[in-house]
Amino acid sequence: MIEFNALKTDDFVKGILDGNKIIISRAITLLESSLHEHQQKANIILQQCLPHTGNSMRIGITGVPGAGKSTFIESIGNLIIPTGKKIAVLAVDPTSKKTGGSILGDKTRMEILSKDKNVFIRPTAAGNYLGGIAFKTRETILLLEAAGYDVIFIETVGVGQNETAVYSMVDFFLLLLLASAGDELQGMKRGIMEMADIICINKCDGDNVQRCKIAKAEFKRALHLFPPNESGWQTQVETCSALTGDGLKNIWENILQHEQLTKETGYFNKNRKQQLLHWFHEQLQQQMNRHFFEKPFLKAKLAEYEAKITTEEITPSQAVNEIMSMIF
Amino acid sequence: MIEFNALKTDDFVKGILDGNKIIISRAITLLESSLHEHQQKANIILQQCLPHTGNSMRIGITGVPGAGKSTFIESIGNLIIPTGKKIAVLAVDPTSKKTGGSILGDKTRMEILSKDKNVFIRPTAAGNYLGGIAFKTRETILLLEAAGYDVIFIETVGVGQNETAVYSMVDFFLLLLLASAGDELQGMKRGIMEMADIICINKCDGDNVQRCKIAKAEFKRALHLFPPNESGWQTQVETCSALTGDGLKNIWENILQHEQLTKETGYFNKNRKQQLLHWFHEQLQQQMNRHFFEKPFLKAKLAEYEAKITTEEITPSQAVNEIMSMIF
Repeated sequence: MIEFNALKTDDFVKGILDGNKIIISRAITLLESSLHEHQQKANIILQQCLPHTGNSMRIGITGVPGAGKSTFIESIGNLIIPTGKKIAVLAVDPTSKKTGGSILGDKTRMEILSKDKNVFIRPTAAGNYLGGIAFKTRETILLLEAAGYDVIFIETVGVGQNETAVYSMVDFFLLLLLASAGDELQGMKRGIMEMADIICINKCDGDNVQRCKIAKAEFKRALHLFPPNESGWQTQVETCSALTGDGLKNIWENILQHEQLTKETGYFNKNRKQQLLHWFHEQLQQQMNRHFFEKPFLKAKLAEYEAKITTEEITPSQAVNEIMSMIF
Repeated sequence: MIEFNALKTDDFVKGILDGNKIIISRAITLLESSLHEHQQKANIILQQCLPHTGNSMRIGITGVPGAGKSTFIESIGNLIIPTGKKIAVLAVDPTSKKTGGSILGDKTRMEILSKDKNVFIRPTAAGNYLGGIAFKTRETILLLEAAGYDVIFIETVGVGQNETAVYSMVDFFLLLLLASAGDELQGMKRGIMEMADIICINKCDGDNVQRCKIAKAEFKRALHLFPPNESGWQTQVETCSALTGDGLKNIWENILQHEQLTKETGYFNKNRKQQLLHWFHEQLQQQMNRHFFEKPFLKAKLAEYEAKITTEEITPSQAVNEIMSMIF
């Protein structure tokens, strides 16, 4: 066994660039650590990996539990692997905190993928705060790119705030649904439909084929009533069966077409730059807030003002004025 | 003519509570002023008006230019006035800066309303920054409530960022469309559909009736594929003609039903509290940023880091670390 504590940052960087899965895992653990020393080390590693990043396709996949996300990734992954691509799968799953990682369940479901030397599967730490999930996942993506992964799937259950965070770090966003469309959307967040670059209606097999075709037609009809994507891409609706493999090739081709189109128009790079700046400002904001408002005195003051605001004793503007003159 | 500079804050408050339109106008001008002295005065006035606020229904109306927003407000306003309600109309219009106030054009289109003693019509200052529009409009709403306005329409053209700001300050959000649905949505922002509590297809008159009915059916079918509103309200689709008045009574009844439902479930108050807190945090953030990042040295540094981030010389995390240690 490798003595990890003995590993220097250079060893990490070399291991990552060599695609050493054990070292990659350990580097992600460093990233996710809340120890200041670990974070510093992780930052140096990341910084050195940076020139080797950016070459993957980042694909977000969301859908309610039961939509078949893991099977879908397993099946489409097995289509992609033979084309010579290396695949990574990250699961941003709020439930993994409770269950000790539902990805373990997923791993057995991704039986073939998880054994492939060109595949890396990992849950991302839920962290203690929402933004944290996003920051760590973004940094993990960079490490995986430096390690040579060409296609990175980021999987979420589309029921919380996470899918917005995931949307802000991917090139392509895939919404996996079942033919019972309307019903399952009950549990989802509004806005999710308008994020999708493709809506895939899964489990289109056996006696479910007809229902899936009807659902596809309904979604297609609905989508022309939406404002268009900023990317110029028209959101697609496709059926597939992760079980039989039907339709997956078509979906993969859609993803490649999207890549080609957005690279031609320049949207691909523009979007990535915007995402980086968004990430920067978000993190800066968070650090500033932490610096000021997590100090006990101000934290208590803030709570006092919030109470006064909601009982309409004070306007937000007035509260802000008072807080600002308290700080400065 | 009243000597405004001689008016004390108490005079303002009294004038507002008395519903004196000239004084209300002048108070809004104070609110919108960038002079520190004016802002301080406005804050005191607002603070004193606060106990008299909160009693209106705040209705956001959006739609592309040409959808007939002004005529719609004129017509539905004339339906509401006889029920004894006082109406205010605020226009948040980014173009008003250039044209010197497109509301002037609107005023002539709101011929009857603009002459009614129970109606107050006003554009809101575009301000120099986006958030500014929202802050001033929110505060203007409070003044108008103190002045006894029961229904406040906030009108935007749904093509920019403004409608998100407006959405965050209203109880009910109305999207006005034409039967050419798909086409006009081209100019709109994604996400707008999912904000709507009601979609009204306007100009349902003459030989356009059939097309409007088809559009209504299409939107109704599409909406059942959306996740539901957090409020528990099912987004409605209705046709109307602001010209003939057809359908307007029905739309007003929808608004009243929405009010009744959300008041019964408690969502109405919950939403308003959330909006206040959102407003507070947004404004606090903005002030903090202004305090730090608008100072020339840091502003320049920030721009430097942004450039390095987009050329991938540095990770956002590393940039944030360096900036934080520069400040503290």
